[in-house]
This record gives sequence, C-alpha cells and structure tokens, in this order.
Amino acid sequence: MDRLKGNLVVAQSGGPTAVINASVAGVAEEAFKNEDVITGVYGSLHGIEGILYENLIDLGKEDRATIHGLIETPAAALLSCRHKLTEADYDRILDVFKAHNIRYFFYIGGNDSMDTAYRVSVLAERSGYELRSVGVPKTIDNDLAFTDHCPGFGSVARWVASSVRDAGLDTEAIGVVDKVKVIEIMGRNAGWVTAASALARDHEDAAPHLIYVPEKPINMDRLLNDVQRVYDRLGYCVVAVCEGAKGEDGKPLMASTSAVDVDAFGHAQMGGVADYLCKVIAAKLKLKARFDKPGTIQRVSSLLASPVDREEAYGVGAEAVRQALNGVTGKMVTIERLSNDPYKSRFGLVDSEKVANAEKLIPEEYLSPEGNDVTQAFLDYARPLIGGPLPKYAYLKKVAVAKKVS
Amino acid sequence: MDRLKGNLVVAQSGGPTAVINASVAGVAEEAFKNEDVITGVYGSLHGIEGILYENLIDLGKEDRATIHGLIETPAAALLSCRHKLTEADYDRILDVFKAHNIRYFFYIGGNDSMDTAYRVSVLAERSGYELRSVGVPKTIDNDLAFTDHCPGFGSVARWVASSVRDAGLDTEAIGVVDKVKVIEIMGRNAGWVTAASALARDHEDAAPHLIYVPEKPINMDRLLNDVQRVYDRLGYCVVAVCEGAKGEDGKPLMASTSAVDVDAFGHAQMGGVADYLCKVIAAKLKLKARFDKPGTIQRVSSLLASPVDREEAYGVGAEAVRQALNGVTGKMVTIERLSNDPYKSRFGLVDSEKVANAEKLIPEEYLSPEGNDVTQAFLDYARPLIGGPLPKYAYLKKVAVAKKVS
Repeated sequence: MDRLKGNLVVAQSGGPTAVINASVAGVAEEAFKNEDVITGVYGSLHGIEGILYENLIDLGKEDRATIHGLIETPAAALLSCRHKLTEADYDRILDVFKAHNIRYFFYIGGNDSMDTAYRVSVLAERSGYELRSVGVPKTIDNDLAFTDHCPGFGSVARWVASSVRDAGLDTEAIGVVDKVKVIEIMGRNAGWVTAASALARDHEDAAPHLIYVPEKPINMDRLLNDVQRVYDRLGYCVVAVCEGAKGEDGKPLMASTSAVDVDAFGHAQMGGVADYLCKVIAAKLKLKARFDKPGTIQRVSSLLASPVDREEAYGVGAEAVRQALNGVTGKMVTIERLSNDPYKSRFGLVDSEKVANAEKLIPEEYLSPEGNDVTQAFLDYARPLIGGPLPKYAYLKKVAVAKKVS
Repeated sequence: MDRLKGNLVVAQSGGPTAVINASVAGVAEEAFKNEDVITGVYGSLHGIEGILYENLIDLGKEDRATIHGLIETPAAALLSCRHKLTEADYDRILDVFKAHNIRYFFYIGGNDSMDTAYRVSVLAERSGYELRSVGVPKTIDNDLAFTDHCPGFGSVARWVASSVRDAGLDTEAIGVVDKVKVIEIMGRNAGWVTAASALARDHEDAAPHLIYVPEKPINMDRLLNDVQRVYDRLGYCVVAVCEGAKGEDGKPLMASTSAVDVDAFGHAQMGGVADYLCKVIAAKLKLKARFDKPGTIQRVSSLLASPVDREEAYGVGAEAVRQALNGVTGKMVTIERLSNDPYKSRFGLVDSEKVANAEKLIPEEYLSPEGNDVTQAFLDYARPLIGGPLPKYAYLKKVAVAKKVS
C-alpha cells in the first residue's frame, strides 16, 4: 500500500495532566521515524484553536532533546483549550488542513476532543480530502469508555494516594486539635480520582476512612453518622470527597452558579464541597474540621507521576501514528489490559464517535454498598496503574511503659 | 566527667512535617549508642500530654529497622499536640520525670515547645533534680530565631516550589479558560513557605508571577493592578498568597471568627484568603480566577521531601543527645550555615528561652519593595535547603509555521 504523504499536526485539549506531553513526544518521535511520508510535524497551539487561527508551530525545528524532554514535563506544552466548535469552524479546519497539506491529525484529549477528531474525519471524507484523524486518549478523570483506563489517571492516582496517606498521618498526629480532615478531589460526574485515594492504605485504620464519589449520592445524615462513628473509634477522621459529589436529588452538592464559572461546554465548575462539609460537620457534630483542596496541583505533579502512566501516555501517541500510517482514521487508540500481576497492556482501537458519546462512571462492583468506600475489585483494577508500590512507612508498635504516678 | 545516668524521653509538638520523625530517629539512634548511661529510650505520645498523662512508650522495644524507617515516614510518629501548660502541669511533669527516672528530655517543636523545654529545665534545676532538657527545632514555618533555618522548611519549600511551577504550567496551558490561579500557602505571620514558591522559576515568565506574604501588607488596588498587568502581558497570572496575608490595617485579610477555629494558644486559624482573592479578582477585573489550597498536604509530603532537610532533621536530633550527654540543658540546637555553594552547615546552641520569645519574619532584604515578590537574596538563602535542583523541564521554542489562509 502506498502510504499517504503529507504533513502532521498534533494538538492537546482539556485539562492538563502530568503526562499529556509524553503523548506529544510519542507522536512526534514516531513521526520523525517516518519522514519519508510525514514531511512536516506541526503542533497546534491551544488545541483546535491553533488550527482555526493557523497558530501552528514546527516541531521539526525543535531540538530533538527538547521533544524527548517533554516526556518528563507536565501540563500541556502545546497549550490547551476548551473550544466548542461550530459548523463554520469545521469548514475552516479543512481549509487550513488543505492549505498546509495536513494529512495526519492527532488530537490528544477526552470525550469532546474525540468528538472533534471524529467530525473532522467525517468532513474530510465527505469532501474527498484524504486525512487520517486519530484520537489519543487523555484525561485524569478516567471517564473514557472502551479503554481500560486513560493516560493521566495513573499519575493523579499516585499523587492522590500518596498525599491522602500523608494527610491521614498528619491528621492522626494533630487529631487532638483538628479532628476531621476533608480532602476535596477533582472530578465532575466520575469519582475515579477520589476512589484512588484508597490506594495507599497500608493498615486497617489508614486514611481515607470515608470516600464519597458522585456515583453514590450522599445522604447527609448518613455521612454525619459515618464521620461520628470513625471519630469515636479513632479520635480523628479523614474524608475524601469528589468535588462533583451529589446529593440525593442527583444534583451536585455544590455547583457554582456564577456565570464566570461555567465553561464553554456549559459544564458548571465544581468546588467548595469540602469547605461545605467542614461547616456541616462543625455545626452538627461539634467537631473541628479542616479541608485541603489541592485543586489543579494534583493533576500536573510531574515529580510524582506514575512511570507506567508516563510510558503508556507515550505509547498511545506513538501507536496513533503507526495506525494512521496503516490507514486508520476516525478511531481512538485504547489501552487493553492483558494481566494484573505482572501488569501488562496492549493498544487497541475504537471508533472515536463511540467514545465521544459515552462517559465511563465507576461501576457498581467497585463501590461499597454503603456508598462510602471502594471495594477490593477497584483496588485490584487501579493499583497497577500508579506504577509500583509507594514507599513503605515505619509504624511504631507503641509498647506502653507501665504508669508509676497515680 | 561522670555522665548522668537515667532514662530519656522524646516528644513531638505542633504541626507535623515531612521530616520531624527523622529527628526522633536521630535522638533514638544516638541514645541507643549510649546505653551505658541512657538506660531507657521512651517516647511521649501527643507531645507534653504524654508526660502529663504518663502515656509513654518504650522505643527500645521497637525493631531497630522501624526506628530507622522513621527517617522516611512523614507526620509525627509519636503524635503531636498543641497543649498550653499550666503551673500545676509543670509540677506534674517533674513528678512523672522523677517517677520514671527521666534525666534526658528532648522536645521537638517550635517556639511554644522551646518555652516548655526551657521551663521544665528551670523547674528541675530549682527543685534540685538533675535533668538535661534540650530543644530540637522543627517548623515548616521557618520562623524560629537564632537558627539559620528550621528542619521541615526545606521539604515544604521543595513541595511548594515544585507544585507552584507545575500549577503555573497548568494555568498557562489552560489560561484561555481559567485565567488567574491563586495558590494559598501555609503561614500565619511569617511568609517563608509562600516565598519558597519562587524557587522553581526557571525562565523569565515562570510562575508565580506575584507573591504576597504577611510581612508586606496588601493594598488591594495595587494587587488588582498587579494581576491585570501580568494578565495583559502573558494572558494568565499565577499568584502565591500566604494564608496569613495581611491588609493595610495590619490584620489578616481572612481570619476565621468561628470559635472552633481558634487553637489552644488563642491563635486564630487562617484560611480562605485565596477564595476571597478569587472573588475580588472576578468581580473587579472580570477575570475567571480559581484557587488551589493544598493545606496540610504541603507540609507532610514524604515523597517530595528535601534530602538536605531530612539529613539535618536527623542531625539536630542526634546532636541534641550528644550535647545533653555533655551536660547541656536549657538550650535548643541550631543550624549554622557555613557556605552556600557547596552548601555546608554545622550545629550550634542557643538558650531555649530566647527562641521561645522570638519570631523570625522574612527580613526586608528578601522582599521586593513593591511587596509582591522575593529578591535574589532570598533565593540564594533558600535554594540550598530544598536539596538539589528540581528536574529540568523541556520548553518548546515554538517556531511558527507561516500562515497560508487569510
């Protein structure tokens, strides 16, 4: 088969992650290996906007060491966007592709990006312009369907697991003062990242003691009972709550109604649920509660990134190029798990359209029936993704010295 | 000189850190080397409360590997407290010491702990009970006087520097949506930790763009001007603000008035300043602002601890034992800096009483006259403490592709 000759453009979209740049490196380095057909390797600045506004950069003019260094550089080197495309935008995209002889388009992102990648491939086909548009999965939210998991998730999971374990020890140590700690973790409808807070539990009483995700609506009385019960047993309590946690009416406990807090897709920005829970706990249980809201810091911590995640993020980028060179278009690269121990995976493909219209929430069997914890099945699923065990901590047996003063 | 024979007790106080347990390991391992005079090595649970209530544990009965493992275990293995002592408490402490033949007392903590260690030493002397009470410095706040810096600071500085750099890249990448990021960093009166956010700046436009510490009162109009100016230049803006940041009236911008938020020493719990600034920025500048409030997570992250800090934390513990064996009492171990490059330090001593009554704020020469940044002098001071440079990130030159579509 004659391979399609022309230029390549890669773009990044949505929330940055610790490893999304590894996918850019994967695309670029695989493309550089095929310079006989891929004549130019371009990056689009600010996602699809860089194509609309013709803000393209030439990745071939970067030092190869810089391209390789992207593997360990967090956030989004090509810059990101959350742009909702109009019909006119799509025509413009095709015009730009034609003008620059772009024959390969790789969009690294979540559902919305897969929708874009799919529509572009359809439009190109209809207009008889040969184009290979392949989606590269990315989202810390881990909510893309048809893939075992999403690049970005393993790293945020490692960060959250490690940080919640540490915050748990902190709260235990200082529990006589700050009795309840509520940690607010990212996630809109899917609680995958919040669930990952359980991954560093290394003994029976280890934090987090309670986990609330949007998949299981919160009954406030039951939550308060849960907190009181843990507090009565341990003298402190650590709660991991997803920013998108819902009440029994199915609505987020805290959704900002401020107009500046609604993104271009109409998704409301979440936030404040931990602060709110602290106030309820202080008021109803008379327990001093403090919250940590690490916010975007959790999703881009390069120093705590998961090695497995980084490798797979690179891999899905490189695989997308290999598949496109083989003629694939309108698909997203997936990760298929082959085994858990040792962890092994391979790449697959799925129609981008299917991914665009689906959202993978945490399945029932990964959540405790009480709605306040995860199950062993979840831990088995998520543990290999954080890339090796976290360091073992030393815990004292605490052998009491006999009292001598009455 | 005949060395004083008897038991030892070590206790931890105040906010946990990533390396305070290394000081316990330093005390215990140095004590174990001197078992001819230090006949028992005890830990007091929950700081001074463990002595008051006789909740002592026998560290000699722990596996030596566990004691050594404390070096890499964050928080406070002996548990902490914020207990304000009464006169009756001091008598009780001495009774417990006498009953258990405690001759060596090491209190790891900040100003309040040094006050306690000092008073105990005075009381013992007055009552003719031979005791060596030596303070071991610890505080992420870095606000103890008479020591170059405090164990705990280097690690939180490394965490904050790295996290703010990453959050800066995140905000740059997604800046078209979330234009301003405000990161709230721990600190009541001293802004050392907030200032450390500048340590990872690796290019001219790197985050944080603005730094506000309690030492420089905030004029809100000037702050808004600062944010607008940075935003106009870069298209986004990252602000690091200390939770104890003050207004021009000298009062914290945000001090919780809730009774549950005032600790035993009457210190008000800070919090909410980043949330508040986001609201002001959104209202006045019409820029969408989000905040990260990593809270206690920043102070106990073991995985990002500074190797230099960990080593010094161990060292001040071991040195306290060596000095006490030599007859020292009523003193705190200090760190004296010998050189910056290569970084070298040695231990010294200061009267605990002096430390108890002083608070070291950031000196004028470490802060920009505008009150929105640190100076090179601060960077030179703080950089060696984070334990080696942070990983270098790869930044694209971004060579533009010539536009072809109008």
